[in-house]
Amino acid sequence: MPEGPLDGLLVVDLSRVLAGPFTCMLLADLGARVVKVERPGTGDDSRAYGPFLRGESLYFARVNRGKESIAVDLKSADGRAVLDALLGRADAVVENFRPGVMDRLGYGPAALAERFPRLVALSLSGFGHSGPWSQRPAYDAVVQAMSGVMAITGEPGRAWAKPGVPIADLSAGLYGAVAVLAALRERDATGRGQHLDIAMFDTTVSLLEGAALRFLATGENPGSIGNAHFAIAPFDTFACSDRAITICAANDALFGALCGVLGLALAADERYASNALRHEHREALKVELEAALAADGAAGWLERLGAAGVPCGPVMDVAEAVGSEQTAARRMVVDAGGLPVPGNPVKSSAHPDPTAFPPAPALDADGPALRAELGL
Amino acid sequence: MPEGPLDGLLVVDLSRVLAGPFTCMLLADLGARVVKVERPGTGDDSRAYGPFLRGESLYFARVNRGKESIAVDLKSADGRAVLDALLGRADAVVENFRPGVMDRLGYGPAALAERFPRLVALSLSGFGHSGPWSQRPAYDAVVQAMSGVMAITGEPGRAWAKPGVPIADLSAGLYGAVAVLAALRERDATGRGQHLDIAMFDTTVSLLEGAALRFLATGENPGSIGNAHFAIAPFDTFACSDRAITICAANDALFGALCGVLGLALAADERYASNALRHEHREALKVELEAALAADGAAGWLERLGAAGVPCGPVMDVAEAVGSEQTAARRMVVDAGGLPVPGNPVKSSAHPDPTAFPPAPALDADGPALRAELGL
Repeated sequence: MPEGPLDGLLVVDLSRVLAGPFTCMLLADLGARVVKVERPGTGDDSRAYGPFLRGESLYFARVNRGKESIAVDLKSADGRAVLDALLGRADAVVENFRPGVMDRLGYGPAALAERFPRLVALSLSGFGHSGPWSQRPAYDAVVQAMSGVMAITGEPGRAWAKPGVPIADLSAGLYGAVAVLAALRERDATGRGQHLDIAMFDTTVSLLEGAALRFLATGENPGSIGNAHFAIAPFDTFACSDRAITICAANDALFGALCGVLGLALAADERYASNALRHEHREALKVELEAALAADGAAGWLERLGAAGVPCGPVMDVAEAVGSEQTAARRMVVDAGGLPVPGNPVKSSAHPDPTAFPPAPALDADGPALRAELGL
Repeated sequence: MPEGPLDGLLVVDLSRVLAGPFTCMLLADLGARVVKVERPGTGDDSRAYGPFLRGESLYFARVNRGKESIAVDLKSADGRAVLDALLGRADAVVENFRPGVMDRLGYGPAALAERFPRLVALSLSGFGHSGPWSQRPAYDAVVQAMSGVMAITGEPGRAWAKPGVPIADLSAGLYGAVAVLAALRERDATGRGQHLDIAMFDTTVSLLEGAALRFLATGENPGSIGNAHFAIAPFDTFACSDRAITICAANDALFGALCGVLGLALAADERYASNALRHEHREALKVELEAALAADGAAGWLERLGAAGVPCGPVMDVAEAVGSEQTAARRMVVDAGGLPVPGNPVKSSAHPDPTAFPPAPALDADGPALRAELGL
């Protein structure tokens, strides 16, 4: 793992596919030692997921870089001996089995608390370890559908759309890292670990923000408002003569600056005299703004709007975004064992921001060394 | 703040609107004491953002619950004295001004490191403190547009769509909390704080996963694939006779189970003999699956698919999701000073999961008490 603030931590990663491995990758990127315990033979399902580069799964490489791998069968005496030895030395363990599986393996929360009182145990699951939906099998797409996120995404009046990023998995993974680090802080003070139960459904509901708040405030069921904002206008995408840009004029001063750049006298129009009125009349306002924007291409407008301090930007495709000069300057594409993968967004004054990360491990690559280290 | 693993931590929140306040709310939800330093007169811009309930901004209440508020002008001698006294006692400070503003106020990273060596300082910004785009003003929608997220969301062949959730702000907020907690762990060991520079652009690019990896593997520029998966099929939304459901048959066994429930003999079809082949022929496969699903409503299919272990779920609207029995069972809607807001997804065995949180503060509600406590 890279040098980082979590040097000295040992995390056991029992998880598969995305949410749990992502939590453990975040910790590894920050310096923790992560041992990934995998099923013999095939290992983590995601070793078989594309895209592939030079025969390697980028999916697996991206979220397992810098980890060690040991293959054991958790239902065998040998596997349990390895896991017991690891947990006896570990600070945290992360798993994302269906609720109940860890109990059946003999590693449920009560057993862990009794046998490894200093251990912080994180369970990630689709719907959590309580509630009527707890036993539902879930992937990211199921949780996105059931959380309301899809219902508020897409063109108004057409079918909803799934955000193109796996936010149920990744939000659970991020909350998981927050929870583990907070619990370790308490463990350091009290000597006691704890069990953390994080559900992708809960973390995704927690992201709804404006839409959930509007429902909670009014009982009204928000549908998609397209690329507009629930409360602010103009705050949307707008067509220029060649391509679309986002403009966010979130207050009267920015709206005035926008009108100045576009040569429009809208600031005096009583329909647009306040943000609330602009939001109410946002469709008419969009027509007026796009009529003016049609006179030039995006590059010209972005330059003039930027000079006037109006927040704006082009709608970029993935190649433009990932291939951008900003992505390069921020080292947001790095090398992991010869494979290109997204970098670490945590930039710290205390640690280097590496351009190369250790590779993801081959299945059981560290098994013999780990067994020797554990005296097994 | 509620009882939690971060009891005893003091965080100074200089941030406004969403990303920074969200980081500090995450820390407050876990027990940290958070003092929000606001501009006199109007305070945080988001105090004026809807939706409103009984005259209170739910937007502000949601991300500032459990914090204290003190109003000071950071350009005045009095304001600087208050901030100095706070920072002298604080463990962490969070700000999301445009890069350079803290330097001009006299609280840039170097000044903070010299004057408050134990302090962890988190800067959240649209594009970070380095790189050619650093000075661009940004809101969530600008960053979503420029990160490629919109380009991979929405119906294939139509215009892209912005995910209905503010993932640029919230992913930066979550990474911010991870970074602060990791840095505090190191501070406890070494006595030295650090400066953390997190960009919404970086955190959003880090969420692209499949789409970014496909570009990095092949140079191919992925557009939206609608609700389908980049590598797995069938893994999409499908129309039943009354409404749509998501079905995720991520391996051969689940595909066989799906075909069994639908009464289809597709497992023997050579076009669908492996996940890779199913993905290649996913449009034809969707037609066949939807022809069968048209024979019954979603409820019946979900029951039978669930019994067969096939991950599935209805596409729910926000009212169904937020109003669901699972949301209630998981306490994912809570009371903050009489206002309904989303709950805390971190469920811990060591702490109660409260149904009521302290309210968000009125502007300067804690100013007099804080000044007395600080001896000012």
